[in-house]
Amino acid sequence: MSELEQTLQLLRAALGDAAVLTGAAINPRHHSDWTRHAPACPAALLLPRDTAQVSAALRICNERGQSLVPQGGMTGLAGGAVPRAQDIALSLERLDGIEEIDTAAATMTVRAGTRLERIQQAAAEAGLLFPLDLGARGSCQIGGNIATNAGGNAVIRYGMTRDLVLGLEVVLADGRVLNLLNKMIKNNTGYDLKQCFIGSEGTLGVITRAVLKLAPPPGAQSTALCALPDYAAAVALLRRLQRRLGTPQAYELMWQDFYRLGVSWLETTQAPLAEDYPLYALFDSAATAEALQDALQGAFDDGEVIDAVIAGSQAQARQLWKIREATGEFPNRLQPLNFDVSLPIGRIGDFAERCRQRLDARWPGNRSVYFGHIGDSNLHLTVDCRSLPQPAPILEVEELVYTAVGEMAGSVSAEHGIGLLKREFLHHSVSPEALQVMRQLKLALDPRGILNPGKLFD
Amino acid sequence: MSELEQTLQLLRAALGDAAVLTGAAINPRHHSDWTRHAPACPAALLLPRDTAQVSAALRICNERGQSLVPQGGMTGLAGGAVPRAQDIALSLERLDGIEEIDTAAATMTVRAGTRLERIQQAAAEAGLLFPLDLGARGSCQIGGNIATNAGGNAVIRYGMTRDLVLGLEVVLADGRVLNLLNKMIKNNTGYDLKQCFIGSEGTLGVITRAVLKLAPPPGAQSTALCALPDYAAAVALLRRLQRRLGTPQAYELMWQDFYRLGVSWLETTQAPLAEDYPLYALFDSAATAEALQDALQGAFDDGEVIDAVIAGSQAQARQLWKIREATGEFPNRLQPLNFDVSLPIGRIGDFAERCRQRLDARWPGNRSVYFGHIGDSNLHLTVDCRSLPQPAPILEVEELVYTAVGEMAGSVSAEHGIGLLKREFLHHSVSPEALQVMRQLKLALDPRGILNPGKLFD
Repeated sequence: MSELEQTLQLLRAALGDAAVLTGAAINPRHHSDWTRHAPACPAALLLPRDTAQVSAALRICNERGQSLVPQGGMTGLAGGAVPRAQDIALSLERLDGIEEIDTAAATMTVRAGTRLERIQQAAAEAGLLFPLDLGARGSCQIGGNIATNAGGNAVIRYGMTRDLVLGLEVVLADGRVLNLLNKMIKNNTGYDLKQCFIGSEGTLGVITRAVLKLAPPPGAQSTALCALPDYAAAVALLRRLQRRLGTPQAYELMWQDFYRLGVSWLETTQAPLAEDYPLYALFDSAATAEALQDALQGAFDDGEVIDAVIAGSQAQARQLWKIREATGEFPNRLQPLNFDVSLPIGRIGDFAERCRQRLDARWPGNRSVYFGHIGDSNLHLTVDCRSLPQPAPILEVEELVYTAVGEMAGSVSAEHGIGLLKREFLHHSVSPEALQVMRQLKLALDPRGILNPGKLFD
Repeated sequence: MSELEQTLQLLRAALGDAAVLTGAAINPRHHSDWTRHAPACPAALLLPRDTAQVSAALRICNERGQSLVPQGGMTGLAGGAVPRAQDIALSLERLDGIEEIDTAAATMTVRAGTRLERIQQAAAEAGLLFPLDLGARGSCQIGGNIATNAGGNAVIRYGMTRDLVLGLEVVLADGRVLNLLNKMIKNNTGYDLKQCFIGSEGTLGVITRAVLKLAPPPGAQSTALCALPDYAAAVALLRRLQRRLGTPQAYELMWQDFYRLGVSWLETTQAPLAEDYPLYALFDSAATAEALQDALQGAFDDGEVIDAVIAGSQAQARQLWKIREATGEFPNRLQPLNFDVSLPIGRIGDFAERCRQRLDARWPGNRSVYFGHIGDSNLHLTVDCRSLPQPAPILEVEELVYTAVGEMAGSVSAEHGIGLLKREFLHHSVSPEALQVMRQLKLALDPRGILNPGKLFD
C-alpha cells in the first residue's frame, strides 16, 4: 500500500468513508482551473463535519507529512485554495451554520463554511448589519473571507474582514484546537493570536468558527455621481464629504476610460454625465439628499466638482451603480488581466498616470482602464489582453505594473491576497527581513509545512 | 570586570556614555514604585537617539543574554514597564518627534517616544483627528500606547490603538530592524506582522516608529446624561442612538453608587439628576440637540429612559463629564483597588450584580463602585480598600473578581494589559492551548528571552 493509501485509510477511519473522496468523486470546483498555474485534481477531498474531525484530519496529515489545502467557496482571485496533485484538499463546506446571534453584544457566532450571503441575511433579520460585501457573496464562505482578509466596497466605512472578526476557533497544523472565541471589543490578555490567522491564506491553521462583529443597520442612503477635474479633487471631495456628512458607505473612483466603457455597456443610450471629464466619483452617503446637495454645492464652488447628478430614486441609484459594476461584464467582453493594488491615497493619481504611460510606451495601442476604492487606498486596473501582441505577454505586464507599485511604496495586493498568482511579485512590497519573520512564524506554527504549501512566500 | 560591566562597556561604545546611565543618575520615574511587585532601580538606563542605536543595544544585549525592559512614558497601569534590579531599562523618550503628516492619506508618521498629546495637537492643526485619548495623554508615549494596545473613551467610535495603527518599525530581539511602515488601509501581502507587536507589552520587539491613521475632525457635539431603570435599558438606549444618530463618540455608564460618589465630590451642591436611579448613561453624540431630543423622547416613551438632561452649553457638558471624571479623584479620596475587565455586553449588568453580591457576602460593609465603557464591553470597578479588613486582602479580592470574570466568559484585562499585575489571573481568560501558542511565538521571535522577562505569561 502506498504512503498516500495508508494516509487515506487513517483518514477514512477517523472521518468515515463518505468524508474522504478521491478521483472522479471530487467535484471539479475543488480543483478549479481558472488560474494558469496548472491546478490538478487533488489526491483526495476531505469533507469534515465538525471541529473534532478537522482536528483529527490535521493530526493524521501532520504525523504523516501529508500536505493539505484548506478550501472555502473557491471564489478567491489569487489561487490560494488551488491544490496540486499531491495535496489533499480540506473543504469546510459541511461546517456550515449560524450558531448564535447575540443582539446585546451585536455579535454572530458562525461556522467557517457558512456562506457570506446567509450571514448578511441573518444579520438583517436581527435588525443589524454584517457589513462585509463582495460580488461572490452567494458562494464564498466566511472562513475563506477571514483567511484572505477580504475587502469589498464597504471597507471605507466598516474596515476589512480583520476589523469585523472578534474571535476565532482555529485548528493548528498538529491538530490542536485553539479556542480564541471572544465577544469583547476590548480584550488585552496577551498576544492577540487571532490576528496571525486572519489573512494568512490557510498557511498557519484552519479556521473552523468565528465571532463576527455586527453593525447598526444603515439608514437611508443618497447616491451621487460627480465629474471631477483631476485626482486631487477626488481626494478633496472625499475629505469634504467625511467632514460634512460622515464617512460615505462607499466611494468609488472611475477614470474616464473606465467610465466610457461602463456607459457603453448600459442598455440605455443616455450617459448620466457627459463622457469627456477626466474622473468620476460615485458614492453612497447616509446624509439626506438636501445635505448632500449642500455639500456638493460647496465642492462645486471650490472647483472640486464640475458636474454632478444625485439619484432621485432607488432605481436611479441602481442605474448609477451599474456603470461601476461594468467589471462584472469584463470576462464576457474583454480578455481581462486584472490588478488589485494599493498605494498611499495621495499617490494613486500619479501611479495611474505612470502605469498608463509605461504600458503605452511598451505596447502602443493597448487598452487599460482604471477604477477603485480610493478611500481605502485601493486601485484596480484592467488590461485587455486582446489589445496586446499575441500571445499576450502577461508576466511582462505584471512585472511592469508591480515594479511601478514597488517604486511608489505601494502593495502588490490590496484585497485579493497573494496565493499562487503573486508569489513572485511579493518582494516589491515586502522587505527581506519581513519575509524572514513570516517564515519564522510559519515554522513555529506549522513546523512540518503541511498547510497550503507553495502559497504566499513558499 | 563583571558580566554586567562588560555589557555596559559594549553599550557605551555603541551608544555613547551619555546614553547609558546607572545608579543615582537614573531618574526614579524609570523604576516607579507604585506597584506592590517590588520594583527596583534597573542595572542601567539606555537612552538611544535613533533606530540604529536601539538596534545596536538589542544586538549587544541579545548576544550577552542581558534582559531589557522597554519603557515609554511610565504611565501604564499593569506594571508592564517596571524593571527588576538585574534588568536594563531602554527608554524611547529621545526617539521623539513627528516625521510626516500626509493629509491626502490621512496618516501621521511618528517616532515611538512622541507624547500622545503632541500627536493629538499636530493632527488638529492639520485639520484632522487622532482619536486615541486617555487621561495620561500629557505624559504617555505613542510607542507605549501601541505596545499596550491602549483603549480610552473614544474606542466605541474609533476602535482601540490597534485600529489606529497602519504601519510600524520594530527592532527585534536580535537587533534586526523590521520595516512594516505602511500607509494603506488595504494591504494583503502575507502575514500582517505588525499585529504581533501591538499589545505585546514589549515582549516581542521594540517599536521605534509608527504610521497612524487619522480621522476626519469631529463636528459639533451634544452631550446628555440619562437616568435608566436597569442595565437592559442601557444597552437598548445605546443601540437606539446608534441606529438613529450614528455611534456616539463616547457612551459611559455609571451605577448609582458611582454616580452618588461623583456628585458628592462636585463643587456645586446641585446634582444634574436625582441620585436615586439605578443607572446613569453619559454620552456625546454628533447629532444636533434637536435630533438628540427626538431620539430621547422615543426612549422615554419606551421606558428606556426615566429622566434626562441635555447640556445647553459646552460649560454644562463639561460639568456633566466631571461626574464621570471623579475617577481622577480616587487616589486622593479613596484607597482604590481598580479593576479593568470586559464581558460580553449583554452580561455586564449581571456581572456587576454577581460581583457586588459576592464582595458583600465576603466582606460586609465594603464599598465597591461600578462604571465603564459598556459599548466597548468594558467595565471598571473600584473597591475602596479602607472599607475592607486591614491589611486589605487585595489578592483575595482580585481572585474573587477575576473568578467571576472567568465564569462569565469575560476578560481579566480590557484595556490596561497584563504586565506584572495580572499574570497570575491570565488563566481565567486564556486557555492553556492559547498560552502554549503565545510561548511558541515568544520563542520564535525572542529565543533568548531577553525582552521584558517576567511580564505577561512569563
